[in-house]
Amino acid sequence: MRGEATAAVEAWLKAHTPRLLDELFFFLRIPSVSTDPAYAEAIRDAAGLLLRRLARIGMQDVMLLEGGGHPSVFAQRADAPDTPTILIYGHYDVQPPDPLALWESPPFEPDLRDGKIFARGATDDKSPLWIALSALEGWLAVHGTLPVNVKLLLEGEEESSSRSLPTILAEHRDRLAADVMLSADGGRFRPGQASVNTSLRGVLALEVRLRTAAHDLHSGRYGGAVGNAAMALARLLASLHDDKNRVAVEGFFDGLQRPGNADVASVHALALDEAAFLAEVGARPGAGEPGVALLEALWFRPTVEVNGITAGYQGAGSKTVIPCEASAKLTCRLGLGQHPAKAAAAVVAHLRAHCPPWADLSIEHPGDGSAAYAVPEDDPFLAAVSRVIEDVHGQAPVRVGIGGTLPVASMVKQTLGLETVMLSYAISDERAHAPNEFFRLSSFDDGLTAWARVLPELAAARR
Amino acid sequence: MRGEATAAVEAWLKAHTPRLLDELFFFLRIPSVSTDPAYAEAIRDAAGLLLRRLARIGMQDVMLLEGGGHPSVFAQRADAPDTPTILIYGHYDVQPPDPLALWESPPFEPDLRDGKIFARGATDDKSPLWIALSALEGWLAVHGTLPVNVKLLLEGEEESSSRSLPTILAEHRDRLAADVMLSADGGRFRPGQASVNTSLRGVLALEVRLRTAAHDLHSGRYGGAVGNAAMALARLLASLHDDKNRVAVEGFFDGLQRPGNADVASVHALALDEAAFLAEVGARPGAGEPGVALLEALWFRPTVEVNGITAGYQGAGSKTVIPCEASAKLTCRLGLGQHPAKAAAAVVAHLRAHCPPWADLSIEHPGDGSAAYAVPEDDPFLAAVSRVIEDVHGQAPVRVGIGGTLPVASMVKQTLGLETVMLSYAISDERAHAPNEFFRLSSFDDGLTAWARVLPELAAARR
Repeated sequence: MRGEATAAVEAWLKAHTPRLLDELFFFLRIPSVSTDPAYAEAIRDAAGLLLRRLARIGMQDVMLLEGGGHPSVFAQRADAPDTPTILIYGHYDVQPPDPLALWESPPFEPDLRDGKIFARGATDDKSPLWIALSALEGWLAVHGTLPVNVKLLLEGEEESSSRSLPTILAEHRDRLAADVMLSADGGRFRPGQASVNTSLRGVLALEVRLRTAAHDLHSGRYGGAVGNAAMALARLLASLHDDKNRVAVEGFFDGLQRPGNADVASVHALALDEAAFLAEVGARPGAGEPGVALLEALWFRPTVEVNGITAGYQGAGSKTVIPCEASAKLTCRLGLGQHPAKAAAAVVAHLRAHCPPWADLSIEHPGDGSAAYAVPEDDPFLAAVSRVIEDVHGQAPVRVGIGGTLPVASMVKQTLGLETVMLSYAISDERAHAPNEFFRLSSFDDGLTAWARVLPELAAARR
Repeated sequence: MRGEATAAVEAWLKAHTPRLLDELFFFLRIPSVSTDPAYAEAIRDAAGLLLRRLARIGMQDVMLLEGGGHPSVFAQRADAPDTPTILIYGHYDVQPPDPLALWESPPFEPDLRDGKIFARGATDDKSPLWIALSALEGWLAVHGTLPVNVKLLLEGEEESSSRSLPTILAEHRDRLAADVMLSADGGRFRPGQASVNTSLRGVLALEVRLRTAAHDLHSGRYGGAVGNAAMALARLLASLHDDKNRVAVEGFFDGLQRPGNADVASVHALALDEAAFLAEVGARPGAGEPGVALLEALWFRPTVEVNGITAGYQGAGSKTVIPCEASAKLTCRLGLGQHPAKAAAAVVAHLRAHCPPWADLSIEHPGDGSAAYAVPEDDPFLAAVSRVIEDVHGQAPVRVGIGGTLPVASMVKQTLGLETVMLSYAISDERAHAPNEFFRLSSFDDGLTAWARVLPELAAARR
């Protein structure tokens, strides 16, 4: 499939890889944490670096798109009439580096060890994003034009629930108009297995707080007579699942669709060794829904998870106190077809119905949540990306779901009417969000090849 | 009942009250917190102050009794052949002052406001203890002898579960031999109501920890496939009670005795306004066992309380993490007849039986716990104390239980074979263990009178 034009770009990229990596390391040194206001200046630095690079490599209309929070970076080139317009997505913000003590090298001093780049943001999402920009640079350096029309949307708040993105998308609807979104974020299944992402779960978050008295009470003076907020919370949280580990919230599953046949076939084709998968993280079988394959559970089944509980005395030794307050953070992963607001309302109604009359319940919603997303099985851009992956890796890619969420996918579907296909060179074992996050050098090389080839391949695809 | 000798002591105490209060304030300034090693020097200072005072007022064999932790202070006088020997108990250690920000005056700078002494330890137990010592001083100052044989056991670890007390009692069994223990610790029911303590609940503590994976996991990448330690803990804790708020642990109630008729009569005689009692602390009815009177629940029913829960992410905002570890601190209050070790074993067996197979459960026991205690209804020393209370307050005292625990009571019963009667001038609303702890000045005056009178009254009592 590879023409001479593409081969020249690949040769250029190969020759310039050391410089491209140097620049990536510079990008990784910027602590662009979006969740903590202390890093606001670093966020601006990272956006500024992208603006300069995009202008330098020859992108046009390079600008910040503001939406009230951290801006997105935009740029475009329309060099190829009669080709589709590809909206390339990535994000330049990163998760906080905590816990710092567990890093073997400082999170913002990228370190090359054993063929891996260790740094916060290495796999999520700075290297995958850098690969995409480098492919554009290669095409522009060698040919002076791109083989397909390209727009860029580089977000600065992906790790903060994409708070401002709906505003940015709505305000710049025309500017962002395209035929498909191509995401540099996403993830490959595992090393040595060609794969293509075809779905994402949604997410919604709730914070639950119970109050049972004006202040903490002495368990001797009041125990047996007054309610215990920690106990009440435990009972409330326990009511969220039945004894088969299945979510027991009435109405929660409303709208949930079964995964498509091709996706179910993938689950079986991959024949995951479930016990080994769990053993890798020190977990044991039996915590999932009986009769549901592990990958089906991860990719397509909704969940209600308790992310944290705070109640009463947590110091050393014992303290005979009856906590007056207890709180829990919950997040739900959503399957295809579930509406985030309706699923949240079902959980809230369940909690209210199960809260004892002697406790005050308050519930906060940090954000609106995101729906799950799946690219249609017959999407021509998905087919184009799949052909490129097969070409580069010599293996037809397996369709894989992502258990996590890219809020942008459902947002651009809703606001811009675009489907999202993903071409990420991150791999799911690279410790995204965790200490010692890394990215494989070999993925950088493969990614440059794939991104160099995907641009002309998409030029020929049309819905 | 009051003879001339007692009247002279009372007059002396009245005349010397300002100086006695000055000395109490000096005692209250010592931050003798027993639970935190940082205060070890203050604990020694408080014990030293007691040693000096006891020697100065004329007590004999003044010494420290060591048991490996903070020492107890001992002293005695055997002035009255043919009278019983009374072992007077109190404690000189206090709870930590946290949370400091909620104190209106510094916890270790006693402040006199509205007829109340505000300070950590004011009601628990420095003022009640000071009253007892002052009564001894009065008798010795006026008469040079005590009207009954007296031994003193002033503990330094009551707020630390009386850890070393079993050792001290065992090592000094002969030295501490007596006919009855008279405790300055305990509590009156409420202002304006003459009362006498006749029972205490026991206590036991457990710490429960669940582990479900080697480290915290991303809820997108693992949610639905792996166990959630916070969720598992919630379910485990919820299983401890049934839907009637009754402890649902098999074997937990084994040995539990019904309260005596006189105690049940008290519950009814007091006719507590339960809704008002709960409203005082901002709590609502309905959290107790149905059909059990509030005071009966508080004084005689066993409980299982969750004192605190720690799990997962507790910071601001949401974090999509599956906690790999969750822990809870539990304390149980025990009713008369329950054996602490057997009750603990029942709870442990319940937790093991209800722990899901995909979680690792570990349980720690901070200490052995203490059994409940009740003084026999026909105890002659209880009758003597009751007569004194009626004499001082012009009202027959109501028998009241204590929902809390004085570990010393069951320990001296077991080791020394002594019953414990209580003559405390603390009142249960004086914020023991909480910010702005206080003690009423009027209780200091009443207490001096009662303690001056109780010594000759006990001299005449004999089992």
